[in-house]
Amino acid sequence: MGFELGPNRYGKAGIHLATVVRGEERHEFSEREIEVRLEGDFEEVHTEGDNATVLPTDTMRSSAYALAFEHPEEALEAFALRYTEYLVHASPAASRAEAWMSERPWERVVIDGQPHPHAFTRGAFRWTTHVVRERDEVRVSGGLDELYLLKTTGSAFGGFLKDRYTILPETDDRILATELDARWRYTRTDLDFAAEREACRVAIIGAFAHHDDSRSVQHTLWRLGMAALEASANVDEVTFSMPNLHHVAVDLSYCGLQNDGKVFVVTDKPSGRIEGTVRRTEDVVSG
Amino acid sequence: MGFELGPNRYGKAGIHLATVVRGEERHEFSEREIEVRLEGDFEEVHTEGDNATVLPTDTMRSSAYALAFEHPEEALEAFALRYTEYLVHASPAASRAEAWMSERPWERVVIDGQPHPHAFTRGAFRWTTHVVRERDEVRVSGGLDELYLLKTTGSAFGGFLKDRYTILPETDDRILATELDARWRYTRTDLDFAAEREACRVAIIGAFAHHDDSRSVQHTLWRLGMAALEASANVDEVTFSMPNLHHVAVDLSYCGLQNDGKVFVVTDKPSGRIEGTVRRTEDVVSG
Amino acid sequence: MGFELGPNRYGKAGIHLATVVRGEERHEFSEREIEVRLEGDFEEVHTEGDNATVLPTDTMRSSAYALAFEHPEEALEAFALRYTEYLVHASPAASRAEAWMSERPWERVVIDGQPHPHAFTRGAFRWTTHVVRERDEVRVSGGLDELYLLKTTGSAFGGFLKDRYTILPETDDRILATELDARWRYTRTDLDFAAEREACRVAIIGAFAHHDDSRSVQHTLWRLGMAALEASANVDEVTFSMPNLHHVAVDLSYCGLQNDGKVFVVTDKPSGRIEGTVRRTEDVVSG
Amino acid sequence: MGFELGPNRYGKAGIHLATVVRGEERHEFSEREIEVRLEGDFEEVHTEGDNATVLPTDTMRSSAYALAFEHPEEALEAFALRYTEYLVHASPAASRAEAWMSERPWERVVIDGQPHPHAFTRGAFRWTTHVVRERDEVRVSGGLDELYLLKTTGSAFGGFLKDRYTILPETDDRILATELDARWRYTRTDLDFAAEREACRVAIIGAFAHHDDSRSVQHTLWRLGMAALEASANVDEVTFSMPNLHHVAVDLSYCGLQNDGKVFVVTDKPSGRIEGTVRRTEDVVSG
Repeated sequence: MGFELGPNRYGKAGIHLATVVRGEERHEFSEREIEVRLEGDFEEVHTEGDNATVLPTDTMRSSAYALAFEHPEEALEAFALRYTEYLVHASPAASRAEAWMSERPWERVVIDGQPHPHAFTRGAFRWTTHVVRERDEVRVSGGLDELYLLKTTGSAFGGFLKDRYTILPETDDRILATELDARWRYTRTDLDFAAEREACRVAIIGAFAHHDDSRSVQHTLWRLGMAALEASANVDEVTFSMPNLHHVAVDLSYCGLQNDGKVFVVTDKPSGRIEGTVRRTEDVVSG
Repeated sequence: MGFELGPNRYGKAGIHLATVVRGEERHEFSEREIEVRLEGDFEEVHTEGDNATVLPTDTMRSSAYALAFEHPEEALEAFALRYTEYLVHASPAASRAEAWMSERPWERVVIDGQPHPHAFTRGAFRWTTHVVRERDEVRVSGGLDELYLLKTTGSAFGGFLKDRYTILPETDDRILATELDARWRYTRTDLDFAAEREACRVAIIGAFAHHDDSRSVQHTLWRLGMAALEASANVDEVTFSMPNLHHVAVDLSYCGLQNDGKVFVVTDKPSGRIEGTVRRTEDVVSG
Repeated sequence: MGFELGPNRYGKAGIHLATVVRGEERHEFSEREIEVRLEGDFEEVHTEGDNATVLPTDTMRSSAYALAFEHPEEALEAFALRYTEYLVHASPAASRAEAWMSERPWERVVIDGQPHPHAFTRGAFRWTTHVVRERDEVRVSGGLDELYLLKTTGSAFGGFLKDRYTILPETDDRILATELDARWRYTRTDLDFAAEREACRVAIIGAFAHHDDSRSVQHTLWRLGMAALEASANVDEVTFSMPNLHHVAVDLSYCGLQNDGKVFVVTDKPSGRIEGTVRRTEDVVSG
Repeated sequence: MGFELGPNRYGKAGIHLATVVRGEERHEFSEREIEVRLEGDFEEVHTEGDNATVLPTDTMRSSAYALAFEHPEEALEAFALRYTEYLVHASPAASRAEAWMSERPWERVVIDGQPHPHAFTRGAFRWTTHVVRERDEVRVSGGLDELYLLKTTGSAFGGFLKDRYTILPETDDRILATELDARWRYTRTDLDFAAEREACRVAIIGAFAHHDDSRSVQHTLWRLGMAALEASANVDEVTFSMPNLHHVAVDLSYCGLQNDGKVFVVTDKPSGRIEGTVRRTEDVVSG
């Protein structure tokens, strides 16, 4: 019987660091969580126990601190690009370095209309980035997750396929709620990422709010995708994961009440899962 | 050998409901999670298996929906007061009903400066309430939790007790970060709770930001307490749980760098735990 | 307006350590998580920012490691007793030290019937302990949590109180499932805690399995309590938290099937919460 | 500007059901969690809001109950195969159905050496399965996750690559700990899956325990893979995710102690991440 090593990779998860930029008038603060993987020629690491080509995952951790020190002001995407550049340089056996980073927006505390110079409160969602760096190519995505969006009207779901197990009634007015996860692919690596990502975020939230004839989560997802692509010329595709967080109108007939869309059970599990990518058509990209 | 029943209670956790108030110009949305307990004369339930006095926990669930239907516009505290009133009425054997409720603020989406009539995004912290209702007395608290606050300067920790196990260096400038949990006790049950709780929240955040000579988490906790009590005449004590979320400056000497307060390890575990109550002095309360 | 400090305490959570006892024939391994609080005369810490009486929470962490080093073979309860003894000694201002500890059982891997000398796999529940030490008194409890127990029959729930919101049908045969949390109070501090806690665990599981005429979770809780007290003469009361993890028989009539107790929805939320204490009667304790 | 729909899929997560087989002498119990996705020709669902081809995710939920009712005794893999068969049949637009299922082993309570007929306690890990069904092909994997394994000796890590950021010392004796996630690919769909998966589990745990000259997690992963493939002729590749759960020997020199491998800090974050596949060489598979 013979065996061989298939696909493999290794790295670190849960590197958690913060940076402070101490400006004269005010401080900037960021808090970042980092995950990383290397892929390459690591066969003898597995089969022979030979670690000569292994950059320890502990070095992935300690180098992240040092690199953050050099440019604490940097956008998340730029940091991920620079970090993966270090990694492929430091690991000659690696053909590919991949990094996922996230940061919660820490918003400046505002008191009587005045932004405070060094006090912050943590926001509700997370910015994310994903960089894949190979020896001759690099791809960078921005994104956000844990963004909860909800509409109390303007959403329907009907006209669907039915079979013997179908019990869901059609509805022309339901609550639509999701915990949005969006990832957009940048076409360049030299962008003002903070501006790009904010443009995407604003476009997505606006499209969600405006889409008042939603026929399904998929239908809304398509609109969000077009809105993001219209908002940034430097993005050529955007992928969404949009769980359908069901809010089911409670049947109150047991106590003689007619629930006209006032009270809903929030069903934490199960939930629908809608995922999809929207991209520019080829001719436009090449045009 | 003889046995007896000691303290006991029962109830429901994880009741999760949402309400919509469908106004002509705009909708209001709330999402609430409810936990409840009854205490009283339930000895034979345990020892004899006699359920005659048991209001089923399922009824605690279904009644919560019906009661929410009646007043979907109600503040969280008011709902908890009304809900516990129902419970002690429905359960003659109960001497005490206790409810904990929480809700995330779902903020109205704002587009080009215009608040949207029916689209919302979920905020970062949670409002909480706790009601204890006995046959002849009721106490109600408001609160918030999961409020992350952080300062990049204005915080020190030194002059502490040392023994053979003490390795922590003193510092006159550190990052102070906490996930605040505050609970304030109202002196009355007929308040505009939405206004009261917002006043407390604003006062707490402001005091955290302003306290720039913090000598410890305890020192700051005391200031937050005074600020909340000054902000609301209808609150007579406030209790805080303030984990100290450590941000440790990384020693970068291993690679020849001098980390002058730029990069920090965020240590998720362990964390300090600081808890305390601030209240009005007796003579003032009675004055 | 005057203010005063009410109840307050401070400490550390999430101290996570492991110990190895390297015997000649085999190793022993334990993994423990520790939480601790001190209470006492800490008013000026809050009001004046004077840290002279403060044993830093970082010292609570570093001392835990050193104390574990001295007796790595010790039972969890014994370690908590010794640790709190150190704490009240090290903190003259403290009137009370409280520690909560937990450990998962890491079971020795067994291969072809042979226990392995140094390979372990983690078990499913957690052992717990709680020590409250005051200057002139100490109380110690043992316990376990995250113990999932389930019976497919032998459990009923009927004859309960009904009102206008009651929709739950009575049943004479349901699934009874819980995630048990038990805490038993020891009457002495010089026990063979490993033997005591195992006796309680075995008695609780056995009583759960044997109680085939369960009329409610409360009814079963009472039996578990008596069983634990019968199993250990050194325990005088035991407190349980027993969520009722509902398994609801699915109505399959929508597709023409009659579900005769074969398929159930496991409803993660909401769940019932049953809590109660069983103790020896006074005359027996003093007899 | 033109847009097009890229890859997309939809389904349900968090379907949670239990089954009971009520034999004359004893009951069998299983508890399963299900996630599912459909892919296919769903473009107009997104772009036009036309739901004619959409099998609702609610039907994915209700059908899972009905299908479980028909064969409650079935192994997890067999259920996933049958469930995806239903899904591609019920959804003509789908070209692919994918299901992930997991179940915790609920072990029969044993009292005085006697297995109880209908009382169970939940085990520590989870069995998993993954089925990908296309119109003309089906692939099925078994697996397990949340299996914590640890060795107190027999593991080294040295001889690795070093650069300016490397601070990790080499070690010839460390604690090796992981939360194992394994997925093995079956070569057939008509197997006794319960027997196959148990053979894999036993082989993996045994190989972990026996590999006493481990030079790295990768080195051990390779051995686990070979062991699983040797244990089952019906598996042709196995993929592992093995986080390296670091146990760092505490430096106790601050209080004059020499920590000779007795006390360790369990660092919950960050952790190493080692992933890899081991498979039979081609000539063997085709031979």
